[in-house]
Amino acid sequence: MNYYAGIDLGGTFVKCGIIDEVGNILIKGKIPTGAGRPYAEIAADMARLVTDLAERAGISPADIKAAGVGSPGIADSKNGVIVYSCNLNWDKVPLSKEMQKHLGVPVFVTNDANAAALGESFAGAAKNYPSSIFITLGTGVGGGIILDGVLFEGNRSAGAEIGHMVIRAGGEKCACGRRGCFEAYASATALIRQTKRAMDKDRASQLWKICPNLEDVDGKTAFDGLRAGDKTAEKVVKNYISYLAEGIANLANIFRPNAVVLGGGVCAEGDTLLVPLRRKVNRLLYGGTKYAPVVLTVATLGNDAGLVGAARFAMQNC
Amino acid sequence: MNYYAGIDLGGTFVKCGIIDEVGNILIKGKIPTGAGRPYAEIAADMARLVTDLAERAGISPADIKAAGVGSPGIADSKNGVIVYSCNLNWDKVPLSKEMQKHLGVPVFVTNDANAAALGESFAGAAKNYPSSIFITLGTGVGGGIILDGVLFEGNRSAGAEIGHMVIRAGGEKCACGRRGCFEAYASATALIRQTKRAMDKDRASQLWKICPNLEDVDGKTAFDGLRAGDKTAEKVVKNYISYLAEGIANLANIFRPNAVVLGGGVCAEGDTLLVPLRRKVNRLLYGGTKYAPVVLTVATLGNDAGLVGAARFAMQNC
Repeated sequence: MNYYAGIDLGGTFVKCGIIDEVGNILIKGKIPTGAGRPYAEIAADMARLVTDLAERAGISPADIKAAGVGSPGIADSKNGVIVYSCNLNWDKVPLSKEMQKHLGVPVFVTNDANAAALGESFAGAAKNYPSSIFITLGTGVGGGIILDGVLFEGNRSAGAEIGHMVIRAGGEKCACGRRGCFEAYASATALIRQTKRAMDKDRASQLWKICPNLEDVDGKTAFDGLRAGDKTAEKVVKNYISYLAEGIANLANIFRPNAVVLGGGVCAEGDTLLVPLRRKVNRLLYGGTKYAPVVLTVATLGNDAGLVGAARFAMQNC
Repeated sequence: MNYYAGIDLGGTFVKCGIIDEVGNILIKGKIPTGAGRPYAEIAADMARLVTDLAERAGISPADIKAAGVGSPGIADSKNGVIVYSCNLNWDKVPLSKEMQKHLGVPVFVTNDANAAALGESFAGAAKNYPSSIFITLGTGVGGGIILDGVLFEGNRSAGAEIGHMVIRAGGEKCACGRRGCFEAYASATALIRQTKRAMDKDRASQLWKICPNLEDVDGKTAFDGLRAGDKTAEKVVKNYISYLAEGIANLANIFRPNAVVLGGGVCAEGDTLLVPLRRKVNRLLYGGTKYAPVVLTVATLGNDAGLVGAARFAMQNC
């Protein structure tokens, strides 16, 4: 049997899993990243984590064919280099080469959101769909594009920046410098901002009972208000879903994937989010839904998506 | 030598060319489409045009390895079916099969804008770039996406509807039913509408000298006004270029292609359009232009792009 190691390299923790050829996780574990240290130390730790896990699972190191790393920032997958990562304070780090020294097998790197997209495509929510788009609604809006089971990264892995597609020119300011980005309307951060604004304008809203302190507003607050029957909360949620639908429909019209998979905390709202969102997206699909429908669903691998996808990336490229 | 026939099937004319393996056009010709007739008649005429041209060029029919057709409407390239075309009044027409009967070689179909994109990629403006996006600014905004030299069509060939990406949610109404589509801001039709509106508001504008009759306004009018020093015209052009830049930057951030190629009448404005457009697009590229620059240029094949691309599509698929 062939096995592959998948690493989800985060600013706080390094998570690693060893998976088989069909995507089963045999064993997983994590260690603190210790960001700020020289990259060679972090790479050595990651390699050690792989061999430790293999040993604990009773897998001979020779059976691990390759390893993959999903890293924050810009990862030049062709050359195995982390071009830039502000989380890790890395600049042109030859991560593949460094880890290969220790592991003796090919090591491949890609961006963390791309890895998660590939994980969901290989063994998660998009398993039965050749083409899918994965969208995470978190601090920002990240994502990955899978075409015929393979990650699409764009020239020098600089594409797939789906959060930085403007859906409302001249609108909300985005961290990237543009105005009106998808991220500025559909991230959890954007939902929180929208909720706070609505509360500011409506001191009588029940949202103030749910969350008496503006600083405590999170991505759940408006949905809680909606469930409590509050009109202001309902408006916030409706508005949020409308913008989310615009961005998803844009990507659907451009890629016409088989499926769109949503990840991130907001997805915990389940059908309260999904039912109206599906209705709106379907209404915005070019040419309607009959000829080439697009399934809209939520991620199923949770925190494992990144490591499964990183391992799959290694499997496909080695 | 192997040759390929490429057909650009339009509502008025059928244009055909026979090209060699490197994209040289050996001979070309055209016949009236006679739209409205049964599809079998049109298919037979197209096949006859191919054999006539081959004969006139002294090419043995046996040397023509395959034929490709770029058709208006939705073309299911996998099954060789024109799913729907309002121009031709076609509904589920098995065009590949019908033409193969006459030609005895494989026949492939794709959408006309996709064919033009592939033509520019194979032998035109994007020849030296593996990945490119072709955008035509005409009555609508059409286009095609080339990834590593191959056409990307999406599931059931229903993708690449780049004109129907919303860039200003809630904005101008689009023919597709959405509001704020790229097409509703960047097509020649949109530019004409914007010019007329500006003239309506400014009766003193020099635009009235250039074009005394509102109905005669075309895609050139505002540019002519700009060159004549008219402030209102300048604003119209500036605004048009801003929206065009937003849409192009969106596609660049999503695909990070090597090049974006513009087609359509508006491109005749040359540097008056291109210089400010490039500056704006570059400012909107995620992460800047240093790491993975995107070349912005204009189409070079003109009316031949479709037939060259259709032939290339046949070459790649046979």
